[in-house]
Amino acid sequence: MAAKKPKLKVISLGGLQEIGKNMTVFEYNQDIIIVDCGLAFPEDEMLGIDMVIPDISYLEKNKDKVRGIVLTHGHEDHIGALPYILKELNVPVFGTLLTIGLLENKLKEHGLMDTTRRHVVVPGESIKLGSFNVEFIHTNHSIADAVALAIHTPVGVVIHTGDFKVDYTPIDGGAIDLQRFAQLGSEGVLLLLSDSTNASRPGFTMSEKTVGGVFDRIFEETPDNRIMIATFSSNIHRIQQIVNSAVKFNRKIAIIGRSMLNAVKTSIELEYLVMPENTLIDISEIKNYNDNELVIITTGSQGEPMSALSRIAASEHKQVAIKPDDKIIFSSSSIPGNEKMISKVINELIKKGADVVYEGMADVHVSGHACREELKLILTLTKPKFFMPVHGEYSHLTSHKELAVSLGMNKRNVFVMSIGEVLELSKNEAKVTGTVKAGQVLIDGLGVGDVGNIVLRDRKHLSEDGLMIVVVAMEKESGAVISGPDIISRGFVYVRESEDLLDGAKKAVADVLMDYEYKNGTSWNYIKGLIKDELKDYLWQKTKRSPMILPIIMEV
Amino acid sequence: MAAKKPKLKVISLGGLQEIGKNMTVFEYNQDIIIVDCGLAFPEDEMLGIDMVIPDISYLEKNKDKVRGIVLTHGHEDHIGALPYILKELNVPVFGTLLTIGLLENKLKEHGLMDTTRRHVVVPGESIKLGSFNVEFIHTNHSIADAVALAIHTPVGVVIHTGDFKVDYTPIDGGAIDLQRFAQLGSEGVLLLLSDSTNASRPGFTMSEKTVGGVFDRIFEETPDNRIMIATFSSNIHRIQQIVNSAVKFNRKIAIIGRSMLNAVKTSIELEYLVMPENTLIDISEIKNYNDNELVIITTGSQGEPMSALSRIAASEHKQVAIKPDDKIIFSSSSIPGNEKMISKVINELIKKGADVVYEGMADVHVSGHACREELKLILTLTKPKFFMPVHGEYSHLTSHKELAVSLGMNKRNVFVMSIGEVLELSKNEAKVTGTVKAGQVLIDGLGVGDVGNIVLRDRKHLSEDGLMIVVVAMEKESGAVISGPDIISRGFVYVRESEDLLDGAKKAVADVLMDYEYKNGTSWNYIKGLIKDELKDYLWQKTKRSPMILPIIMEV
Repeated sequence: MAAKKPKLKVISLGGLQEIGKNMTVFEYNQDIIIVDCGLAFPEDEMLGIDMVIPDISYLEKNKDKVRGIVLTHGHEDHIGALPYILKELNVPVFGTLLTIGLLENKLKEHGLMDTTRRHVVVPGESIKLGSFNVEFIHTNHSIADAVALAIHTPVGVVIHTGDFKVDYTPIDGGAIDLQRFAQLGSEGVLLLLSDSTNASRPGFTMSEKTVGGVFDRIFEETPDNRIMIATFSSNIHRIQQIVNSAVKFNRKIAIIGRSMLNAVKTSIELEYLVMPENTLIDISEIKNYNDNELVIITTGSQGEPMSALSRIAASEHKQVAIKPDDKIIFSSSSIPGNEKMISKVINELIKKGADVVYEGMADVHVSGHACREELKLILTLTKPKFFMPVHGEYSHLTSHKELAVSLGMNKRNVFVMSIGEVLELSKNEAKVTGTVKAGQVLIDGLGVGDVGNIVLRDRKHLSEDGLMIVVVAMEKESGAVISGPDIISRGFVYVRESEDLLDGAKKAVADVLMDYEYKNGTSWNYIKGLIKDELKDYLWQKTKRSPMILPIIMEV
Repeated sequence: MAAKKPKLKVISLGGLQEIGKNMTVFEYNQDIIIVDCGLAFPEDEMLGIDMVIPDISYLEKNKDKVRGIVLTHGHEDHIGALPYILKELNVPVFGTLLTIGLLENKLKEHGLMDTTRRHVVVPGESIKLGSFNVEFIHTNHSIADAVALAIHTPVGVVIHTGDFKVDYTPIDGGAIDLQRFAQLGSEGVLLLLSDSTNASRPGFTMSEKTVGGVFDRIFEETPDNRIMIATFSSNIHRIQQIVNSAVKFNRKIAIIGRSMLNAVKTSIELEYLVMPENTLIDISEIKNYNDNELVIITTGSQGEPMSALSRIAASEHKQVAIKPDDKIIFSSSSIPGNEKMISKVINELIKKGADVVYEGMADVHVSGHACREELKLILTLTKPKFFMPVHGEYSHLTSHKELAVSLGMNKRNVFVMSIGEVLELSKNEAKVTGTVKAGQVLIDGLGVGDVGNIVLRDRKHLSEDGLMIVVVAMEKESGAVISGPDIISRGFVYVRESEDLLDGAKKAVADVLMDYEYKNGTSWNYIKGLIKDELKDYLWQKTKRSPMILPIIMEV
C-alpha cells in the first residue's frame, strides 16, 4: 500500500477578519513558505500600544521547515512585522526592488542589515523554495512594484493576489499582468486567495492617472498661492503625479515628514520616482521662493497628532507656517477611526485662512484596492477550484464569498476562515482540518508581547478613573499604625479643590484600621482588603467613580 | 443729551466651532434669555469623562437678569445640560409638549421635578420674557415638535432656526412653517442664526417619508425572517414608520434599550407615536411568536459597547439571541468617531449569520439637518441684515458664511464667531465687542468640573505606560532606610514575566539611596527627585517606556 500523499496546508496568521498584519503560511511536507509579514495598528482599547504583530508560535515550532519569506509589496501591513519576526526566524526574504528597498530602511533601524539575506526578484521570475515554485506576477496597487504570487505546489497552483487593483493606465510599470492570470486559469488553478478590502464596493476603482488630471486643474486654478499636498508616504505614483504637475507649472518641491522623506529618497535612488534636477529643494529653502513657485508634500493626511501637517496646523512646525490662501489638498481617504483627528486638522487649517480640499470635494484620491467588478474579473480569469477571500474584516470576506457564488462557484468551495485555521488541500479536495496558535502580539516600546490583557485592563481602569494609593506603616507584632494612613491620588480628582473628599477618605481608612481586631499574624492582605472595600464604597458614594485603589502596608 | 440706548448682545456659550452643547444667550438691558442648554459627548482625549456641558460663569454672574430658558427641541445636544444648569440657575423653562416631556424624564432622574417651572408652548404661540417676545415657529427635524424661534427685541427681530430641515412630506405636524419665515423676512429681520451642520453638503436632504418606502420594500422582501432595526431613540418619526410597516405586514413590535423604551413611552403618552392596540409586546413575549411575526426596535446604532445591540452581537443579551438570517437594519448614519465600533458590531452580527443592511447599502436613513439648497431657502426667505452661522465645526460655519455671501450678502455682515464672543447689535449695526468666560465643564460621575487638565494629563500618562510606585520607610534623623524600597507597578509590564526588570529597578533605587549624602534635614522631596530621575532613566533604557513614577517616603 502506498504511503499517504502529503497535503498542502494553508494557514493565515493574520489579515483574516481584521485589517492589517497580513501573513499567510503555505506548508507542504517538510517545507514552509511565508507570504508577507505585516503589522496592524492598535485598536482603540489597546492603550499605549505602538503596533500589533502576528503570533508566530507555529512557525517557531516548525523553524526547520521554513524556506523563506516572500513579500508582495512594501506597505506596513505587509512588511512591518518583519524586523520582529526575523529576530526569531532568520530566513531569506524575497521581494521586488522597491519592496526590498523599503524593507532595508527598517532593517537599518533594527540593526538587521548584516544578518538578513535579501533577494531582489523581478515580476515574471520564479524562485524555488523547497517543494514550492513561487512565481511573481506584476499587479497594480497604491505602491509601485506590487506583485501577486503563483505558488506552484505538488498538489496544484495557488494564486495569492496580494493587495491589488486593475489599472489599465497606471503611472508606471504597465497594467496588471492579466494575460498571466488568464493563462494560469486555463491551465488550472487549485486555490485563489484574493484581496477583499473593497469587496463590498460596487463597480471599478478609478485609475491612478485620473488623480493627475485633477492635480493639473487645481494647479491651473491656483496660479498665485502656495500648494501643500498631504498623502501617504508610500504612494510613490501619487507623489510622481504631484511632481509632474509641479514641473508643468514651474514649481519647486519641498518634502516634510520623516517617513515621506525616507520613501522619496529610496524611490529616487531606485528610480521609481523621476524628477528633473533642481526640482526638489530642502524645506529650509522655501523662504527663497515665492508662494506660486512652491509645492510642499507632507505626511499627516490621517490627522496623526505628531505628523508634520498636524504640527503645521497647530502652528508648531519650525519651518512651515500657514499663510492665508495656502491651497492644501488631502490626497487621501480617511482610514476608519481617524475621522475626528482629520477634521480637527482641517478645521485648524481653515481657521488659519487656508483653502482646504478634502475627501468628497474633488477627485484627489483613488483607492489602491479592486472593487467588485475587478474582483469578478480575477475570479473569472483564474477559475479556481477553491477560493479563500483574504485581507479584510468579516463583512468584506463574506461579500467576496457571495460574489464568487454569484459567478457560479459552489459555496462549499469557498472558505471564509479565521486566523490559525488550517485549510488542507489535495488535488481534488479542500477542507478545514484544525487550528494552530494564532493571535496578536503587542509591541510597546522595546517590549514585544510583555503587555497583555491584565496590563491593558489596568491601563483602561487607570485611564477612566485614575488611582488612589493608601500607605500605612505598621508594626508587625502589634499591628499598631506607626505612620499614616497617607493618601496619594493621580488622575482621580483635582487634589487642591477636593481636600474634603480626600480628608474623608483618610478618615474612613483610619476608622477601618481602628475598628478591626488585630491578632498577631493577621495577614497584611486581609487588612489591605478591608481598606480597599471601605474606600471603594466611600468614593463611589461620594463621587460615583471607582478609581483603582492600591493599599500599601509597610511593615516596620 | 439722551441716554445711550442699550444694545442687544448675542453670546454663544456652546455650539460654535464644535458639535454639541448648544446654548445661546440673548441679553438686552436688564434681561437675559437662554436658548437651549445641551451637552456634548467627550472628545477621545477626555479619558473617563461622561459628558461635557457649557461653562455658565457669565450667567451665574448675571443671575438676576435671566428670565427663562427656551428650548428648540428635545435632543441631548439641546437639553442634556439642563439638569446641571438648573441646579445653579432655577429659571422657568419653555418648550413644546414632546420637548418638555423628554426633559421631564431627565428631571426625574435628577430629582428636579418639584423645583423646575415648566411651561408647554405650541408653535405659533408667543411668550413675553422681559424685553423679549419669543415666538415659536414649527420646523422639521429628526425629532418631533422641533421649533425655530423669532425673538422680537427692542432693536429688531432675531430668528434662531434651531436644528432644522425642510421636509415637504413629514410624518407628522406638517411642513416647516415657511410662510412665517417669509412674513418675518418681508417685515425685516435684524439677525439670523441658522443651523450649519450640513452646510458643506450640496442639494437637499431627503424627506423622512422616503425611509418608510424603503422599510416597506425590505419588509416585503423578508417574508420569513425576523426583522431588527437599530435607530436613534429620539427619532420618533422613524419609529412611527417602523410601526407602520410592522402593522402593514402583521408583525408585533418589541422594544429594547433603556433610552428607546423611555422615548417610546413618553411619545405614546403624549400621542406623538400612534399604534394599534396589541401591536407593542414586551421583549419577554417574543418567544411566543414566529420570526415572521416580529420586529425588534433597538438602540445601539452607533455601536456603543453597552447598548442592547452590541450586547446581542456579543451574545450577552438575556432576551435576544441572533438567529441565522435575522434581517438587521441600521437606520442611522455613523457619527464621526464611531465608525470602528459600528463595524465591529456589524461584523459580529454577520458572523452569527444575520443579514445586515447598513449605511450606503439602502436608503434606510436621512439626515435631520438642512443641506445647502435648504439653507439658501431660509436665507432668502428671511433676508436678514446680519447673519451668524451656528451649530457646527469651523469648516461648517465658514461654508455657511460662503453660502450667504454667494447669495449677495456683504461678508462684513456675516459673523463666524467663537463661544464667549459678544456680538452687539443696534438697529443698524452689529459688531463683536468683547468676550465673556466660556468653555467646557467636564462631568465625571457626580463630579461637575472637578476633572480638569491636570487630571486628564495624568489619566493619559497612566493609560499609555501605566505606573510604578516606589515605597521606602526612612528614619528622619539619620535618613536610614528602615524598610523597602518596595516596588509596585500597574499597567506597565506583566509583573510575573518581568521579574528581572523589576528587580533591576529595585536595585537601581537601592543604589541611589546608598550613594547620596544624607544630612539631617535633607528634604524628602529631594530624595524623591533622585529616585524618580534614576528610575526614569533605568526604565527608558530597558523598555523605551515612561511609566508614571510615584516615589513615596514614609517617615518613621
